[in-house]
Amino acid sequence: MKVFICGFGTVGQGFCEVIARRRQFIRDRYGEDVVIVGAMDSRSYAYDPNGFDPERLVERKISDKRVGDREYTDSVQVLEGIDYDILVEVSPTDVKTGGVGLKNIICALENKKDVITVNKGPLALRFSELTDLAKRNGCLLRFEGSVGGAMPIINLCRENLVGENICSLRGIFNGTCNFILSKMDKGQPFEQALKEAQQMGYAETDPTNDIEGYDSACKIAILANTVFGRDVTFNDVRITGITSITEDAVALAASRNMVIRLIGEVSETKLEVGPRLVPKGHPLSISGTLNTAQILSDLAGPITVTGRGAGRLETASAILSDLVSIMDERVKPQ
Amino acid sequence: MKVFICGFGTVGQGFCEVIARRRQFIRDRYGEDVVIVGAMDSRSYAYDPNGFDPERLVERKISDKRVGDREYTDSVQVLEGIDYDILVEVSPTDVKTGGVGLKNIICALENKKDVITVNKGPLALRFSELTDLAKRNGCLLRFEGSVGGAMPIINLCRENLVGENICSLRGIFNGTCNFILSKMDKGQPFEQALKEAQQMGYAETDPTNDIEGYDSACKIAILANTVFGRDVTFNDVRITGITSITEDAVALAASRNMVIRLIGEVSETKLEVGPRLVPKGHPLSISGTLNTAQILSDLAGPITVTGRGAGRLETASAILSDLVSIMDERVKPQ
Repeated sequence: MKVFICGFGTVGQGFCEVIARRRQFIRDRYGEDVVIVGAMDSRSYAYDPNGFDPERLVERKISDKRVGDREYTDSVQVLEGIDYDILVEVSPTDVKTGGVGLKNIICALENKKDVITVNKGPLALRFSELTDLAKRNGCLLRFEGSVGGAMPIINLCRENLVGENICSLRGIFNGTCNFILSKMDKGQPFEQALKEAQQMGYAETDPTNDIEGYDSACKIAILANTVFGRDVTFNDVRITGITSITEDAVALAASRNMVIRLIGEVSETKLEVGPRLVPKGHPLSISGTLNTAQILSDLAGPITVTGRGAGRLETASAILSDLVSIMDERVKPQ
Repeated sequence: MKVFICGFGTVGQGFCEVIARRRQFIRDRYGEDVVIVGAMDSRSYAYDPNGFDPERLVERKISDKRVGDREYTDSVQVLEGIDYDILVEVSPTDVKTGGVGLKNIICALENKKDVITVNKGPLALRFSELTDLAKRNGCLLRFEGSVGGAMPIINLCRENLVGENICSLRGIFNGTCNFILSKMDKGQPFEQALKEAQQMGYAETDPTNDIEGYDSACKIAILANTVFGRDVTFNDVRITGITSITEDAVALAASRNMVIRLIGEVSETKLEVGPRLVPKGHPLSISGTLNTAQILSDLAGPITVTGRGAGRLETASAILSDLVSIMDERVKPQ
């Protein structure tokens, strides 16, 4: 299987490392290799139909600040001109328009390629269009890492729990907000907690997407579409962020043995993200940067999953699980 | 697909209810029905190659105290004489010899039938023999419900996390013990907590299997074999139960902000069940009858799953997930 990677930041590089570390596993399971035929960053790309050593691609990106020696202006033009089986789309997300990631995914699906992405924008804005296009062209579109990073939630609901009637799903889908709220539990004011999150590399210089709840809302929209079969976008989510949570509110919650957490909730009728009071000791009261989701279904009852919502190898591990799922279908395990 | 059910207590009846409730789902997914061609309890059996209304079987068991109008002495003889595709083996477990469940599973696999079981004894005693036999005969052997009931752990590790190198797995695998320990957290002595567990129907009249840690040890042995590819039995597990935990020990733990929990732990080298000190707020500090498992793997980091470890519909939901997994392979979704 020939893989081309769009986006060569932390996640794209992490995926290359994972492919290098799992070479033998893939060979044993499928009797063939996953060949990285190229990768693209924001300006340059590398392509070789015979494939690259994935670790060499990462080294080149780190030393040269660019992954390839060819420049481009239109990523779609590049994708149209090369040969691959699976597109791994991990370019920076754009929750307003879907950005270049949306174009890349559409281009791949139109050319009957399978796609793995962790890019929330395209999925939160144009989900039904993308899944329809994939279905029409017989392509597989997988996106485990788009919600909760290494926390298994999408494939868990779609595969293991496919026989359940899932009534609702709620959880903590943004580690940055949870880190800030956990710090506020210990008495820090919001601004100071945010600053610490930025110093630790959890929050970006412009933290809007996280703290205004937009990132969580994207994930809730994706879950609504994929788990509940709804047809919603990011813009349909009722969103409240955490910027107006005061030290007083946190202290008042604590006096009642509660914490404040940014909870996303989705069901047949609900679609919202906002700060909620959670009793201490409740599964949704976790601290730090973890993500967690509580699935409520008619037979199994409540099932809770918790895992790392972000990170180089963690997100790449979700891509690997999608890759295995696609290869199980296309190549079959030996 | 023709299913025969061995064991018609809570779980067998719950499975019938689930099949009735999911008739349309199965028809939509596979274009055919799951036909319950019969069921067997400890003395009687029912068999009709054209199938039964699953809810009628349950009604008959409740009103007549027996599922069928035919008596038998040797379950294997019954199984040899009937036609079915999948055996659902949910007869009472025997952790000393594997009991009748072991004979039934071997008989089905020898006749090239697929098997779904939640019967821990056979799996904890003769795992490699059973999986080898299944492999040799091209049969599928599934047992999600044998560990943690509705908590998805086995199929999660085998399917979604198959690309991970799982380093260790630890958790709470016995809801009865966890209920007792949670009550002791609140100041109850062991004997009183056990009595309450019995009154609530969580503990059996002879609670040995639970409180001595044997039930947890079976599950740890099954996980060692299936997740770590080890070849161990129940007898290889280092087991300490909860009977010697005193009120003083619980109080001392509480004074250090800890609780005592019965933790099962397995890795390449570890295989043990025993009381452990767990910090309050840690994922393994949960209270009540829930089960929880923490999977530590090299790429994804820690993943925690929590769910109901027992119950009529909960355990049947795990059987349904195995049934879907088998039918996906045998019939293929439409």
